[in-house]
Amino acid sequence: MAPGAIETVSKNTIAVANRKLGDESSHDIVLKSFRLLVADLCQQFNGGHPGGAIGMAAIGIALWKYTMRYAPHSPDWFNRDRFVLSNGHTCLFQYCFLHLTGYKAMTFDQLKSYHSERVDAFCPGHPEIEHEGIEVTTGPLGQGVANATGLAMATKHLAATFNKPGFDVVSNHTWCMIGDACLQEGVALEAISLAGHYKLNNLTIMYDNNQITCDGSVDLTNTENINDKMRACGWNVIDVEDGCYDIQGIVNAMDAAKRSDKPTFINIRTIIGLGSKVAGTAVAHGAAFGKEDVANMKRAYGFDPEQFYVIPDEVRAFFKNLPARGDKFVEEWEQLVDDYSKEHPELAKRFRARMAGEIDPRWQELIPAKTDFPSKPTSTRAASGVVFNGIAKNIDTFMVGTADLSPSVYMYWPGAKDFQQPDLVPARGEPGDYTGRYIHYGIREHAMGAIANGMAAFAPDTIIPVTSSFFMFYLYAAPAVRMGALQHLRAIHVATHDSIGMGEDGPTHQPIELATLYRAMPNIHYIRPADTEEVAGAWISAIQTKGTPTIISTSRHSLPQLAGTSRDGVLRGAYVLEEDDAATLTLLGVGAELSHVAEVAARLRAEHGVRTRVVSFPSWRLFEAQPLEYRRATLRRHSTRVVAVEPYAPNGWERYADAAACVTRFGHSLPCKAAYRFFGFDADSLLGKVLGYLERVKEDELLGREFVEL
Amino acid sequence: MAPGAIETVSKNTIAVANRKLGDESSHDIVLKSFRLLVADLCQQFNGGHPGGAIGMAAIGIALWKYTMRYAPHSPDWFNRDRFVLSNGHTCLFQYCFLHLTGYKAMTFDQLKSYHSERVDAFCPGHPEIEHEGIEVTTGPLGQGVANATGLAMATKHLAATFNKPGFDVVSNHTWCMIGDACLQEGVALEAISLAGHYKLNNLTIMYDNNQITCDGSVDLTNTENINDKMRACGWNVIDVEDGCYDIQGIVNAMDAAKRSDKPTFINIRTIIGLGSKVAGTAVAHGAAFGKEDVANMKRAYGFDPEQFYVIPDEVRAFFKNLPARGDKFVEEWEQLVDDYSKEHPELAKRFRARMAGEIDPRWQELIPAKTDFPSKPTSTRAASGVVFNGIAKNIDTFMVGTADLSPSVYMYWPGAKDFQQPDLVPARGEPGDYTGRYIHYGIREHAMGAIANGMAAFAPDTIIPVTSSFFMFYLYAAPAVRMGALQHLRAIHVATHDSIGMGEDGPTHQPIELATLYRAMPNIHYIRPADTEEVAGAWISAIQTKGTPTIISTSRHSLPQLAGTSRDGVLRGAYVLEEDDAATLTLLGVGAELSHVAEVAARLRAEHGVRTRVVSFPSWRLFEAQPLEYRRATLRRHSTRVVAVEPYAPNGWERYADAAACVTRFGHSLPCKAAYRFFGFDADSLLGKVLGYLERVKEDELLGREFVEL
Repeated sequence: MAPGAIETVSKNTIAVANRKLGDESSHDIVLKSFRLLVADLCQQFNGGHPGGAIGMAAIGIALWKYTMRYAPHSPDWFNRDRFVLSNGHTCLFQYCFLHLTGYKAMTFDQLKSYHSERVDAFCPGHPEIEHEGIEVTTGPLGQGVANATGLAMATKHLAATFNKPGFDVVSNHTWCMIGDACLQEGVALEAISLAGHYKLNNLTIMYDNNQITCDGSVDLTNTENINDKMRACGWNVIDVEDGCYDIQGIVNAMDAAKRSDKPTFINIRTIIGLGSKVAGTAVAHGAAFGKEDVANMKRAYGFDPEQFYVIPDEVRAFFKNLPARGDKFVEEWEQLVDDYSKEHPELAKRFRARMAGEIDPRWQELIPAKTDFPSKPTSTRAASGVVFNGIAKNIDTFMVGTADLSPSVYMYWPGAKDFQQPDLVPARGEPGDYTGRYIHYGIREHAMGAIANGMAAFAPDTIIPVTSSFFMFYLYAAPAVRMGALQHLRAIHVATHDSIGMGEDGPTHQPIELATLYRAMPNIHYIRPADTEEVAGAWISAIQTKGTPTIISTSRHSLPQLAGTSRDGVLRGAYVLEEDDAATLTLLGVGAELSHVAEVAARLRAEHGVRTRVVSFPSWRLFEAQPLEYRRATLRRHSTRVVAVEPYAPNGWERYADAAACVTRFGHSLPCKAAYRFFGFDADSLLGKVLGYLERVKEDELLGREFVEL
Repeated sequence: MAPGAIETVSKNTIAVANRKLGDESSHDIVLKSFRLLVADLCQQFNGGHPGGAIGMAAIGIALWKYTMRYAPHSPDWFNRDRFVLSNGHTCLFQYCFLHLTGYKAMTFDQLKSYHSERVDAFCPGHPEIEHEGIEVTTGPLGQGVANATGLAMATKHLAATFNKPGFDVVSNHTWCMIGDACLQEGVALEAISLAGHYKLNNLTIMYDNNQITCDGSVDLTNTENINDKMRACGWNVIDVEDGCYDIQGIVNAMDAAKRSDKPTFINIRTIIGLGSKVAGTAVAHGAAFGKEDVANMKRAYGFDPEQFYVIPDEVRAFFKNLPARGDKFVEEWEQLVDDYSKEHPELAKRFRARMAGEIDPRWQELIPAKTDFPSKPTSTRAASGVVFNGIAKNIDTFMVGTADLSPSVYMYWPGAKDFQQPDLVPARGEPGDYTGRYIHYGIREHAMGAIANGMAAFAPDTIIPVTSSFFMFYLYAAPAVRMGALQHLRAIHVATHDSIGMGEDGPTHQPIELATLYRAMPNIHYIRPADTEEVAGAWISAIQTKGTPTIISTSRHSLPQLAGTSRDGVLRGAYVLEEDDAATLTLLGVGAELSHVAEVAARLRAEHGVRTRVVSFPSWRLFEAQPLEYRRATLRRHSTRVVAVEPYAPNGWERYADAAACVTRFGHSLPCKAAYRFFGFDADSLLGKVLGYLERVKEDELLGREFVEL
């Protein structure tokens, strides 16, 4: 195919004529300078990932110079196009373009911080959301594709909600750069399938098809027909044959993408490390080329091999107009929003509030008081619906979804409307639209987590995504949940079936060690509430905590409502449920088993004369944030023996307890009560364990000073 | 399309004529009885998953009666076809066929244990590998597809290694049943891509296409063209229009699958819960139908509504021949192996040893003595290659692979041959074949873990899969690693870049909380060796521990060889590296930071007069298995203050230490040494932390009795 030609495979893609670019004469020098800049930056500390960034140079020019709508001097402009570098190791690609296009923070000095020992560098080894011009942190492959899907869904939803004829106040496009690796990762494949289903025509993937990964040629491990696969997933596919040089062709493809009625996959053939002697090989991927090779590149390009980081004036001039162009975009858009405010004042007010990340404060009033909750036993998953459904229904900020467990998670509120594509006519007979705030993610837990991150990353708190599944499947989603915590993206994850009490589904579904992961993971709140009141506390914590995701961990089975529980106690992580100043024993209870603990305490007092106090302990992280005095007064480790009760791996309870009734093996398929009995978590068994422990420590003084598993 | 007709889409599929089945007259009664049996079993305890099992009845008949080669009375026959129920919640499908086809353990009494409180039930809520006739434990969706891929790879490899003309001693087929959900899960999509690449024509997926998941119609969330997608991934695709009744059509499709040169995807349209009033809806998925509905089904089928679990004589007769047929399969195969032993005695000897799971004992001699290791500093990832490459090269049991990180993981031994499909001609110019034992999994960490489980499940220790990647990406693989631990499947996972010392790649790649997960996960050994000698210990532990997977966690950067390290010490989990009977302080060091700890200890003694001992602590789980006296003598918690040093989340160190230098935030992109400095893990910083701690506990007696993060 001739350079610049486009194969518009989808019959729905409108053929796009060449758009006059204007600055073609500079392309050659810009490409060369960019490639040498990347090579020099890797050479500086003899490390990094030069090959991909170099191979993608023409794509970057097509994107930042000719296609993307953004404003370097207003990097947080609400309606900017979003760019996601899913192949995050090629970060120099983005850093160099941020520098060239005039992002103020990305000074030349900062650009040179790549791989340096500078602690305040804006150029870490993978792009990080904290830095100007970076939309999401990437690195773990495939995540970016799903983040981009979430960003595009956010646009679709906000546009459907707020745009009015003549007032497209939300109209941005999401551009996602990927490499060969992202197309192999399950999380990306899940998101691709969903993006195709949702017809996210505001999403474009640009595939840096260099057919090289760390191990060598991609065909060592992947020989699928990717174009056919993407088409089968509902994507528009466009090929670009010469992705190293054919800027016009790439621009044409991007123009076509913006006119597609589907998401677009631009398959762009490139050569990794173009110009280097290791071009086209895996060696070009993850190591500096070496001084001589770079010098030879410079000679071949007509540059001085003794000069480094050269950005010729012509290159500066090429990018010079972009900040001003960006300012104009912003200005026009602000004018549009002003006009919109006059025409649609109420809607505009809501829109501005959402842009500012303001959550309608009525949410607090929508949570019933403890005394207004039903007093009958309720599963905490159902309680979660009781607490949150009213908020979800009334507060537009929340986009609630599930990985195909609507009947189990109780997150679907009466009258909830699905986020759905317009060509689909669901059972109720109306065509779908994007105003809906209930998302069927499908059985795609990992993508659900990463898409939620993308929605949260659109703008701080403009959308708060709520995901839901069985707790055990948050292990599938864990890499995405981790990325959310790392990026301070606030998603709320509602995880039911959180103990052996979930029963018959057995050891594959019974979480034993998973809470340990989330209790150790930085910047996330894992909360296991014990009844409806504590569920209220968990939701209050989740909604009022900015910049930190929360997992609300709930039971499948019914739990009694306990007299002493308190939402305020939940906010402190742990609190005294039953006090006794003269107690010699403290029992720590959590979530579904707190009522067992309360029962055991009552029997210890009544039948065995053991003065026992009870602490409810829904969240370690929230508790750690309390003052030392509060923590000591709650646990009373120095005046009582402390025993934790939780059918989980004990790891970490050692900090709060002298012993724990715990589970150190995998679960067992049994009905709820039988499972508790089998693992010794019914009141009878627990009573025996605690009494036995109290006996044993009398006999063995050392044991009393060691952590004991019961 | 007419029932029974096959659309053989792949041009390579040989058209298959109808095979005469013989017992067609019984199909109707068998289908009806089977469906009612499933309905009754769910009714018994008013729970379970009836719909899928009922919809798949005809598929099961095609499979167990007409297609699959297996032996109910020799359930572990080496060359049996493997069946994987990836949609494990439909387990009654398998349980009922195991019962009907004559598996001895699956008595009628056992069949009725489904959802009962019986602790020794063979019918848990998902199939479990421990029970007769179950090849792998399934439940978490998508895993089974990848397990089946691993099973098929095991067959390919063993066949290529051991078969000789006229002696196909390994020739079994793998049949994998899936539902709509599995096709949405990333782990399945990764495996599908790899299976297509490897041309695993001994693998057939049977897709129970009922278009229903928990949330309702699949098209709520998935409207892709699955047949096109599978073809794009290199699969042969066959449609069956009437999967509820057309047993002949399904058999024809399975026959065609066995003749394909690619893996085959049989897309079988069924109706979930056929016969129930909730047929074809999500309600049929995960709840019993109710007494009246089941009674009506019985009436409509001409059965007595007052009778339960009825298996008419005609149905018993239909399946009656299967144990004898199976015995004949086994007998013929044993004869074949006997003849093979005469013709190829050496090969047969090796084959029999592999079948018996005997690992060539020379592996122990292939590990150099400590004194023979290079004394220069080495990364433990490189050391892992030094220790293991000789074993991998010489001991056929090991199939070693990587998720595209060959240059980083050091698992490729000189002369290693790739496991590769015959149509691919890699760089060295020879067509691929399946005898190779080095597997390029691609950037598919999750599938890698699940495929490894499949290979390990083929037969105990016939193949020991070794996977490798960056440690952080074992979070992607975690659901599969967990399933391996749960199933006692021995895979060895080699995880490099295991601390903040991995440097520039930054927080997305720096594991902070991940070790916490694997230390809490039941039945897995997580080992962090400190130098080459400890790496030797880690490998010895991994290779000699049957039924438990191991993660060997290694450093990216060079570490000094330490005088006191010991492989035997590693086998005990923790051991005294530097003793001092009069010590007041014990430092616990692990892996990449053990040398830092030794340096700090030396300076504490020399510069500050603090009598300090050092314990190397590579594995908590191995340590917990030691006698109490050993553990007490190693830690000396009662006579010294104990401080752990590890740049990980501290959760769980509380059991072994009074304080820990640890990390409770995400990492930071910095070169290795700078990262250690930034987080206070260089010797200077650590010294300050330890001295500061010793001062603080002098001043605050309570603090001295609480766990302190440094």
